[in-house]
Amino acid sequence: QDFKCNSKSIYLRYFCISFHYVWPLPQIVIPSPERYQLKPQSFSFGYRRYLDTKHSCSVLDAAFKRYFSILFPGYTYGDENEVFTLTISLDRHDCQGYPNQDSSERYKLSVFAGQASLNAETVWGSLRGLETFSQLVYQDDFGSYYVNKTEIEDYPQFNYRGILLDTSRHYLPVQAILKTLDAMAYSKFNVFHWHLVDDPSFPYQSQKFPDLSNKGAFHPVTHIYTQSDVRRVISYARMRGIRVLPEFDSPGHTKSWGKGQSELLTSCYRGGTPSGTFGPVNPTLPSTYQFMASLLKEVASVFPDPYIHLGGDEVDFSCWRSNPYIRAFMRKMGFGLDFSKLEAFYIEKIVNITSVLRKTSIVWQDVFDYHERRKFLSVVEVWKQGCYLCEVRRVVKAGLRVILASPWYLDQPGPTHNWARYYNVWPLAFKGTEKQKSLVIGGEVCLWGEYVDATNLSPRLWPRASAAAERLWSNERQTSCVERAFPRLQEFRCKLLRRGIQAEPLSVGHCKHEYQSGIF
Amino acid sequence: QDFKCNSKSIYLRYFCISFHYVWPLPQIVIPSPERYQLKPQSFSFGYRRYLDTKHSCSVLDAAFKRYFSILFPGYTYGDENEVFTLTISLDRHDCQGYPNQDSSERYKLSVFAGQASLNAETVWGSLRGLETFSQLVYQDDFGSYYVNKTEIEDYPQFNYRGILLDTSRHYLPVQAILKTLDAMAYSKFNVFHWHLVDDPSFPYQSQKFPDLSNKGAFHPVTHIYTQSDVRRVISYARMRGIRVLPEFDSPGHTKSWGKGQSELLTSCYRGGTPSGTFGPVNPTLPSTYQFMASLLKEVASVFPDPYIHLGGDEVDFSCWRSNPYIRAFMRKMGFGLDFSKLEAFYIEKIVNITSVLRKTSIVWQDVFDYHERRKFLSVVEVWKQGCYLCEVRRVVKAGLRVILASPWYLDQPGPTHNWARYYNVWPLAFKGTEKQKSLVIGGEVCLWGEYVDATNLSPRLWPRASAAAERLWSNERQTSCVERAFPRLQEFRCKLLRRGIQAEPLSVGHCKHEYQSGIF
Repeated sequence: QDFKCNSKSIYLRYFCISFHYVWPLPQIVIPSPERYQLKPQSFSFGYRRYLDTKHSCSVLDAAFKRYFSILFPGYTYGDENEVFTLTISLDRHDCQGYPNQDSSERYKLSVFAGQASLNAETVWGSLRGLETFSQLVYQDDFGSYYVNKTEIEDYPQFNYRGILLDTSRHYLPVQAILKTLDAMAYSKFNVFHWHLVDDPSFPYQSQKFPDLSNKGAFHPVTHIYTQSDVRRVISYARMRGIRVLPEFDSPGHTKSWGKGQSELLTSCYRGGTPSGTFGPVNPTLPSTYQFMASLLKEVASVFPDPYIHLGGDEVDFSCWRSNPYIRAFMRKMGFGLDFSKLEAFYIEKIVNITSVLRKTSIVWQDVFDYHERRKFLSVVEVWKQGCYLCEVRRVVKAGLRVILASPWYLDQPGPTHNWARYYNVWPLAFKGTEKQKSLVIGGEVCLWGEYVDATNLSPRLWPRASAAAERLWSNERQTSCVERAFPRLQEFRCKLLRRGIQAEPLSVGHCKHEYQSGIF
Repeated sequence: QDFKCNSKSIYLRYFCISFHYVWPLPQIVIPSPERYQLKPQSFSFGYRRYLDTKHSCSVLDAAFKRYFSILFPGYTYGDENEVFTLTISLDRHDCQGYPNQDSSERYKLSVFAGQASLNAETVWGSLRGLETFSQLVYQDDFGSYYVNKTEIEDYPQFNYRGILLDTSRHYLPVQAILKTLDAMAYSKFNVFHWHLVDDPSFPYQSQKFPDLSNKGAFHPVTHIYTQSDVRRVISYARMRGIRVLPEFDSPGHTKSWGKGQSELLTSCYRGGTPSGTFGPVNPTLPSTYQFMASLLKEVASVFPDPYIHLGGDEVDFSCWRSNPYIRAFMRKMGFGLDFSKLEAFYIEKIVNITSVLRKTSIVWQDVFDYHERRKFLSVVEVWKQGCYLCEVRRVVKAGLRVILASPWYLDQPGPTHNWARYYNVWPLAFKGTEKQKSLVIGGEVCLWGEYVDATNLSPRLWPRASAAAERLWSNERQTSCVERAFPRLQEFRCKLLRRGIQAEPLSVGHCKHEYQSGIF
């Protein structure tokens, strides 16, 4: 069954011998059959001693607790008589900030002589190393814990490894989001792209415009994200080295906004009179930009990430076209009948507002496709099906950065065993210079909400998203063989179950610890 | 949006006015806008007084508790000062037995003058009526409970309304089975077809042949159903008026059996010598029939249902053909090269064993298709795709009873919004006499286990299976309109969530009470 995989990597075969897989695969692994026993009662995490011992790190202290119970389910942390210690050292001992697009996630993990040391440039890198360590530990048939002598040097292939959740088409309880953040950390995802609002509902409770959720959410109390909910999500994500990227998609996809903010949306006309329905944001009124500036200012202060996703996809021009005031504005501006110019006019203003707030904007590919002046753009997210690499190439040739989402639309239900479809994607498989390829900053799994809510989110996302995770983290050449990845992914899926993540089965078989609802 | 639904049923429109839907739709409903308030602290269930007051019924006593907490989540049953009483009377006050193929599920429910009365022929019918009553109760925006004046007369269109779960390809924890039984009762399903064992694993712990699960289960302790597990499932099902139909599929689909029962399977040959692999059960050895008789005798005593499913599908003849002893037996019997005769020989013997145990056997359609002597068969389950009604017609023309499964293979992941595909099935849409049609005893949703385990069972099954449930319970003419069914199914899906069933969303939107893992 190896015939499709003609890579001659002896290294990988050797690695397979030890059976203790890590997902996604680290860049460099030197395994060994030599193993050390770990005992819950005599295991501890520690910092390498610094001159100033006050330098403990809240992110790591919390991670130690988390990973202790992942390593030894059912035990409590008792740090007497440590005989096995995992010692962490950081080049930059900064625990206060947030991970960002440029954060190093590089780490070195070394397990030898009955102890382990983990070195990273940043605290975020050390979290990745802790995850790797937790996946190296295994139990024998009698329940004893072991870890093999191992040397690992690791870093991600792409800095942006995202998952999009859509909380507008269905509301997702905060717990479901936090659970997803847990699972993301296990697959080394580092961006939660929060598609907060859209046509069906506006669940974000704004400080400045409370009517947006009062009138635009499915329910003004039970189906909203309060400021403290949002803070909780951001803080939970930070503790796991995950950024929270908010999306406020406009000028289309805004029906729900109109309920709480009158005059914002374009009034559609039929036969010369308003039809009573509304279209995209009205880009001709100064009040629109006052509102957007005010809302985005709030968003910029609530979400610490230096990026904001501005959407910009799928704008339907028919309503704009029907409205005599919009047409008059078009004439005044000399846009002719080209409504994409009007959209460009709008988006450019919104991007400028975002720049003034010192945030970098991300837009869906539509904005890039339809607009002539592309200089004002920074990052383009490619989402359309078809030749998506052609589009990626166009974007990087224009000197813009790109995030690839097209091949990872996981909201489509599909046979789980088709996971290889998400694995056999290579975002850099286009003709271009090294510099152009470096503009591909990563990729994203999109879980749109038409048919997804808390009832099916986890099994629809996991373990299929983990296939994308390995593509975005690991070395392509070492992970190009589906057949070889399969048993590793199966074992990883069992690890997800053990950690309480409701991940679907990949084929017939079993896990030592099956998912039991209510137990976790 | 009503153009596809040209049924002029005024009755249905009137029913829609009251908004308090029941799924599946009862046969006859006379609703009314008049409503009565229910208060948890002053609501009670009761029996109509009999001369002998000792006639309380354990099935109903348990159902009262269950439905009280379904009616009033979060309240405890306090039966002081009842002002609203639901009084139950049964024509046949028999609470001890099990539901069976001929059990009446007919009931009459009448809500009037601030009280309700429920009459049924059997306790199983009264359970259906309780379910209906629980769906009639609703809350207003202030949380008060109401039920409208209503008259209902109801009975199922088909007596066999089944769900198949496959516990061989993946093990399902007992909890997952019990949860499914709960959900089945909410949709008025009445048969749990337990596809216990198959090629991948043999999780049934036999009293007589413990090695079958010791060696054939995924794990001999954690991945088996003990006798007490089985008893628990049967009793839990009985309390909900659900039959448990065990399937021990042979002679194919038996790889796992061979691990714990040597000499049972056919040894396959390659080039004149045994290849080391095994095929279907060996039908030429007397020991095979001794074993099967002994196993089926145990099964017949463990499972109270008068029916046993004997499988008989997808027998691969290549291994039989390779084996010289099998070929010699074929010659001796005069079967020529027609291995389907050998299969018929085997199945006929197994059916005879089952008859001696006074059980009626059900087989997959393959047995009917390949065998000339069909008289010994009783019930045939049609599962193949293609023109399944042609097959149904063939079976009933042969005078046999039929269960239809083909259109309801829900293990295939598909867009939930395609639920109408399962709704737009009519098992009797073939040319035949009334008597032939009466041989169609029902239908079954099959959830095969290749890609299904406890992680995704519920969202894959619900609410799609409920679409089939209405087809099998309700009057076809009153439920032929998908557009009209849609809001009712949406509301029913929200009820499932409220009751802790992880049912997928059907479209964009929300439920008042969303699914929150860990809360239920």
